[in-house]
Amino acid sequence: MKIVFLGTGGTYPSKARNVVSIAVQMPGEVVMFDCGEGTQRQLMRSSVSFMKISRIFISHLHADHFLGLPGLIQSMSLNGRESPLRIYGPRGVAKTVSSLLNLGYFKSGFAVEARDLKPGTRLDFGTYSVECVEATHSIPSLAFSLEEKARPGRFDVRKARRLGVPEGPLYRRLQGGKAVEVMGRKITPEMVLGPSRPGRKVVYSGDTKPSNRIVALARNADVLIHDSTLHSEHSALAARFGHSTAAEAAAVAKRAGAKMLFLVHLSPRYVGHAVVEREARGIFPEAKVAHDLSEHFVRFRD
Amino acid sequence: MKIVFLGTGGTYPSKARNVVSIAVQMPGEVVMFDCGEGTQRQLMRSSVSFMKISRIFISHLHADHFLGLPGLIQSMSLNGRESPLRIYGPRGVAKTVSSLLNLGYFKSGFAVEARDLKPGTRLDFGTYSVECVEATHSIPSLAFSLEEKARPGRFDVRKARRLGVPEGPLYRRLQGGKAVEVMGRKITPEMVLGPSRPGRKVVYSGDTKPSNRIVALARNADVLIHDSTLHSEHSALAARFGHSTAAEAAAVAKRAGAKMLFLVHLSPRYVGHAVVEREARGIFPEAKVAHDLSEHFVRFRD
Repeated sequence: MKIVFLGTGGTYPSKARNVVSIAVQMPGEVVMFDCGEGTQRQLMRSSVSFMKISRIFISHLHADHFLGLPGLIQSMSLNGRESPLRIYGPRGVAKTVSSLLNLGYFKSGFAVEARDLKPGTRLDFGTYSVECVEATHSIPSLAFSLEEKARPGRFDVRKARRLGVPEGPLYRRLQGGKAVEVMGRKITPEMVLGPSRPGRKVVYSGDTKPSNRIVALARNADVLIHDSTLHSEHSALAARFGHSTAAEAAAVAKRAGAKMLFLVHLSPRYVGHAVVEREARGIFPEAKVAHDLSEHFVRFRD
Repeated sequence: MKIVFLGTGGTYPSKARNVVSIAVQMPGEVVMFDCGEGTQRQLMRSSVSFMKISRIFISHLHADHFLGLPGLIQSMSLNGRESPLRIYGPRGVAKTVSSLLNLGYFKSGFAVEARDLKPGTRLDFGTYSVECVEATHSIPSLAFSLEEKARPGRFDVRKARRLGVPEGPLYRRLQGGKAVEVMGRKITPEMVLGPSRPGRKVVYSGDTKPSNRIVALARNADVLIHDSTLHSEHSALAARFGHSTAAEAAAVAKRAGAKMLFLVHLSPRYVGHAVVEREARGIFPEAKVAHDLSEHFVRFRD
C-alpha cells in the first residue's frame, strides 16, 4: 500500500503546494481522497495511473476539495475508460457531481456513480472497507478510515507436516482459508495457521477542528493524515474557520495511538514548513509535513 | 503590452503544458483568453497579478478552456476582490458561469457578469476594443481580436514653436487632443501632431480549423495566437476534431499578414515541440511554439 500526496495545500494553491488530494495505491486499484483543482496534472506528474482510480472519497464540498473532478473524469473518458467510477461524500455530493457532469459540452464515456454518505456508514469493498464519521468543519464534512481486512495467519509448515498434509495444492487451499481432507481426516485452516494478522489502516480527517470522533476513527491507524492548516499562533483563526493547528493534529494522533501522522492542508502562507512540523513533533514525534508528490509506503506490521 | 502564456496545451494537461490560458497585461489591467483547469496556479507562478484581471474571454465550452474559472473566482474572492469580473464567450457561457458559481458552498464576494456574444460583436472598452468572429470547431466557438485604439501622432516641437505655442501646459493639452488659443489664434492638435499611430493588435483563434474569417480578423495583427493541435502527419485527425495543424496555422498567419505567430493547444502527445515548430516555420518563419509561463512583449510599431 502506497500513499501518494498529490496536493497538500489548503484553501487555494500556491507555488509550492497544490490543493488537497491523496491517492492510496492498493493492490490493483487506486483509492483517492479529495480531488482539488489541478489534481489530474499532479497525477500525470506522479507514479499513480489515473486510469486505475476506482473510488474517490470527497470530504466536503468546498471548492479546493472537489474542483478537480470534472477535468479528471473528462481525461479518463478521453483515454477510453469504460469501468464505472464511484464517488462518495457528504450530503450533496451526488447533486454536485451531477452538476459537474453537465457543464459545457462534456459527456462521460463511462458511468460515474456518486453517493451521499451518512456519517457512520461503513462500506465493504471485499478486501478492504471504508468508514466515515462526521468531522467538525463549517459545512457538512467527513473523515474517512480505509482499512484492509485482516490477513490469514502465517502457515505453519511443521504443524502441516505433523498432520500428514503433503506439500503442494493442499497447502494453498489451507492458506486460502479452506479445509482439506488428508487420509480421511478433515484438516481445517485453524489447525495449521497462526493468528490472523491485521490489515493496514489509513485515516484522512478532511477539514476539521480537533474531534473526538476522529480520535476514535483513527485508533491504532498506521497513518493518520490530518488537517493542519495553521500554526498555533493562529489558533483563533483555525477555530473560526473549522480547521486544526499543527499542535491539535498532533494531539489527535497521540490520543488515537496512530503510528504516523502526515500534516496536510497547510495554509498558502507557509512557504517553508519547518515551523509547522516542529510544533507537531513536540507533541507527536512521528509527525511529518506532507509534500506534493511525496510517497509513503505503508508496510504490514508483521 | 505583454502576453503571458499560462497554459499552452490542448485537450488535457501534460507534465510539460497546462491546458490553455493566455493573459494579456495591458496598462492597469489584465485581459485573459480562456481559463483551463489549473490556471490560477499558473498565475501564481507567473508575473501576472491575478487580482488585476478585468475581463476573461472564453473561446468555447470544452472543459479544457473554462474549468479554471470557479477556482480562480473563489481565490479572487478569498483575497478580498470587490470589483466586478466580466466574462464573455459564445452562446451558453452565461449559463455555464452561473452553474460554476453554484457548485458546492461557494459564494463570490464580488459580481461576476457573464455575457453570451454573437459572432461579429465588437466591444468597446475605451482604450481598446475586442471583436469576435465564429471559429470553425465542433461546437460554437469564437476567435477574438484585441486591438488598442490608435494613439495620437508625435508632437512636432518645431511646428509648435513656429506657431508661437509656449512650452508647458499648452503642449500637454495639444498632445491630449485638445485645441488651445495662443495670442487670440486657435491652434488645433492637427497643426502640431503627426499622423496618428496604430495601436497593437493581438488575435487568438481558440480551437478551430483554418478559417477565412480568422484570416480577416487577424489582418496585420502584431501577434496571432493560433490552434496548432497536431503536426500535418495527423491532418485527418485535426480536421475530424475541428483543429488545425501547425502548417495550417502558419498559412493563416501568412495570409493575414500577421507579424508573428504563436502556436498553442499542442496535443499532449508532443513532449518535444521541434517537429511542430519546424513545420510552421517552413511556411511562416516568424512562428514559435508557445511555452507555459513564457512572455512576449508586444511593442508599438513606431
